[in-house]
Amino acid sequence: MEQLRIPGPTPCPDEVLQAMSRQMINHRGPQFAQILADVTTKLKQLFQTKGDVFLLTGSGTGGLEAAIVNTLSPGDTVLSVSIGVFGERFAAIAEKFGAELIPLRFEWGKAADADAVRQALKAEPKIKAVLVTHNETSTGVTNDLAAISSVVKEFDKLLLVDAISSLGSINLPVDDWHCDVTITGSQKGWMVPPGLAMVSVSQQAWQAHQKARMPRFYWDFAKAKSYLEKGETPWTPVISVVFALSVALDMILKEGLANVFARHAQVGKAAREGVKSLGLPLFAEESHASNTVTAVAAANGLDSKKMLKILREEHQVILAGGQQKLDGKIFRIGHLGWVTESDIEAVISALKIVLPQAGFRSS
Amino acid sequence: MEQLRIPGPTPCPDEVLQAMSRQMINHRGPQFAQILADVTTKLKQLFQTKGDVFLLTGSGTGGLEAAIVNTLSPGDTVLSVSIGVFGERFAAIAEKFGAELIPLRFEWGKAADADAVRQALKAEPKIKAVLVTHNETSTGVTNDLAAISSVVKEFDKLLLVDAISSLGSINLPVDDWHCDVTITGSQKGWMVPPGLAMVSVSQQAWQAHQKARMPRFYWDFAKAKSYLEKGETPWTPVISVVFALSVALDMILKEGLANVFARHAQVGKAAREGVKSLGLPLFAEESHASNTVTAVAAANGLDSKKMLKILREEHQVILAGGQQKLDGKIFRIGHLGWVTESDIEAVISALKIVLPQAGFRSS
Repeated sequence: MEQLRIPGPTPCPDEVLQAMSRQMINHRGPQFAQILADVTTKLKQLFQTKGDVFLLTGSGTGGLEAAIVNTLSPGDTVLSVSIGVFGERFAAIAEKFGAELIPLRFEWGKAADADAVRQALKAEPKIKAVLVTHNETSTGVTNDLAAISSVVKEFDKLLLVDAISSLGSINLPVDDWHCDVTITGSQKGWMVPPGLAMVSVSQQAWQAHQKARMPRFYWDFAKAKSYLEKGETPWTPVISVVFALSVALDMILKEGLANVFARHAQVGKAAREGVKSLGLPLFAEESHASNTVTAVAAANGLDSKKMLKILREEHQVILAGGQQKLDGKIFRIGHLGWVTESDIEAVISALKIVLPQAGFRSS
Repeated sequence: MEQLRIPGPTPCPDEVLQAMSRQMINHRGPQFAQILADVTTKLKQLFQTKGDVFLLTGSGTGGLEAAIVNTLSPGDTVLSVSIGVFGERFAAIAEKFGAELIPLRFEWGKAADADAVRQALKAEPKIKAVLVTHNETSTGVTNDLAAISSVVKEFDKLLLVDAISSLGSINLPVDDWHCDVTITGSQKGWMVPPGLAMVSVSQQAWQAHQKARMPRFYWDFAKAKSYLEKGETPWTPVISVVFALSVALDMILKEGLANVFARHAQVGKAAREGVKSLGLPLFAEESHASNTVTAVAAANGLDSKKMLKILREEHQVILAGGQQKLDGKIFRIGHLGWVTESDIEAVISALKIVLPQAGFRSS
């Protein structure tokens, strides 16, 4: 069997896949209303929030767009804290919809520095919102969101958090950390196929929503809220993925959120130790290395594209390459969702065989 | 087993549901690239177009938003031809994104009149695009799109077509009818769960795209095109629904497009004849009655909400109610996708029993 070890989509347990093959039901009937209410309640528990949580049919990027257009107006000044591809994407969306960006970029592979965020907020009082990536999938770095959030709230700014590849896998207490909009995607730690973005919305985000004038229709949180009150979504939802999510949430709650986080921490550590044991350098600074994805520098002559191809074709191990300026320079091991230490051991064993075949010289 | 006879989501054949339970694969790998290329080629055949066709992860309404934001600029004048809820929705999206609307509304239950479209286009040369619903799901009316298109192209305007509940079930030769953007949704005649919008884009639409300044990111056709060229989608797609669509397209092609249309025409006729045999009036004018959804007036004392509840609870037959101002005034039978005449006979038989229980007095 193929071992899919990319940072999403992630492999789904059998029970989840079985739920995907359930026959369609009326999305405006009592049966769906019941499932939607149940899923929403459980998601609030896992988001650790008493605020609103909505299911949006779309990719995680759609959820990012939703966060922007529901809280901002054209001309609003936004501080964009970016440590990689997905931080840049979040900023690009805001810019497309007319926000004035103040980019605060950190070297790829490093985490954002909360003190630099404070300096930026101090320097420009017009800033209305701060965009931040909790876990940067492109570099394998987890930002210290608690510290950043604390700074953002010193200045009472809106905090929009891309938690697509962290929520449900790495601790992110949405209310305690005052996240105003938090976005995740079904195909990450949730062990569910892609197709759903899940977002939380705080009271402060609702206040911003009232004044926000960026154009929105499909992603409008107000529509999501008014339909949820009657047990529906505004537009036909991706029903099968909601069925699957319902099963996966029960599995997560049964394992226990703290245990899920601990498992990810263990698996993340196993990935990092395994990579280092092969003589390959980690790309991310280790103090902020992600527990859901490990980025590895293609050092010592390694042709990472050749390596990925051999792994795929001869070992059925699927890893991810680098994105944009990291293309060919790193590769990435996804370890979020339905994953154990022995899954990572299998990846490391395959790498051990393939690395020398792909030009790698151990020193 | 439940008989789901709403105008989408529609029931899915077993083979399609089985495809939904397939394990995840890398959406940026060669396997997905192959499926995406194959599905796109087959969709072009069924859209009857040589233009571009894209898969967008989202509901049909997302596809409508995509059509608007990819071709228009704020301030553009748009003629909105509306015969029901979905015509109004298409217009509302355009307005939200800053278009100047010229509404051309027809009585609900009636089709749009091509000559009135001509008069409107003659009266206002500033009109840039015409929005039209091919099949209005809320009223069960199919517009004469060939006639409307011919008028729109007399004036060389852009034609944006909501074909969500018609394409693949009712003939719509996209190129012959010069549709610039055509939108459909997986959960309609395609026999696939919801989660995918499919859109065609003509050369004229691409010319409009170059000048279009409405903000867009998630729905951007240019991104869809550049990624499709390398066998990918810009954002993580709803992989399972693409698997399912791949199976369903083969079924449709095997049956043959002309046969699929003929079957829908037969089933539509059976629904209308059946309803009339019960002594209930059709809501839509019969000359333009839809072959995918039949709207029925709740006449002669019929409490349609009570009827829908009894049908659901005691007969496992799921029909749809009326929307907005038609709430409680009509009910609707969906007959698109995986449906036969005997399925409709079963609905009519159940109605025969339930109607008198819900206040209906046959005259």
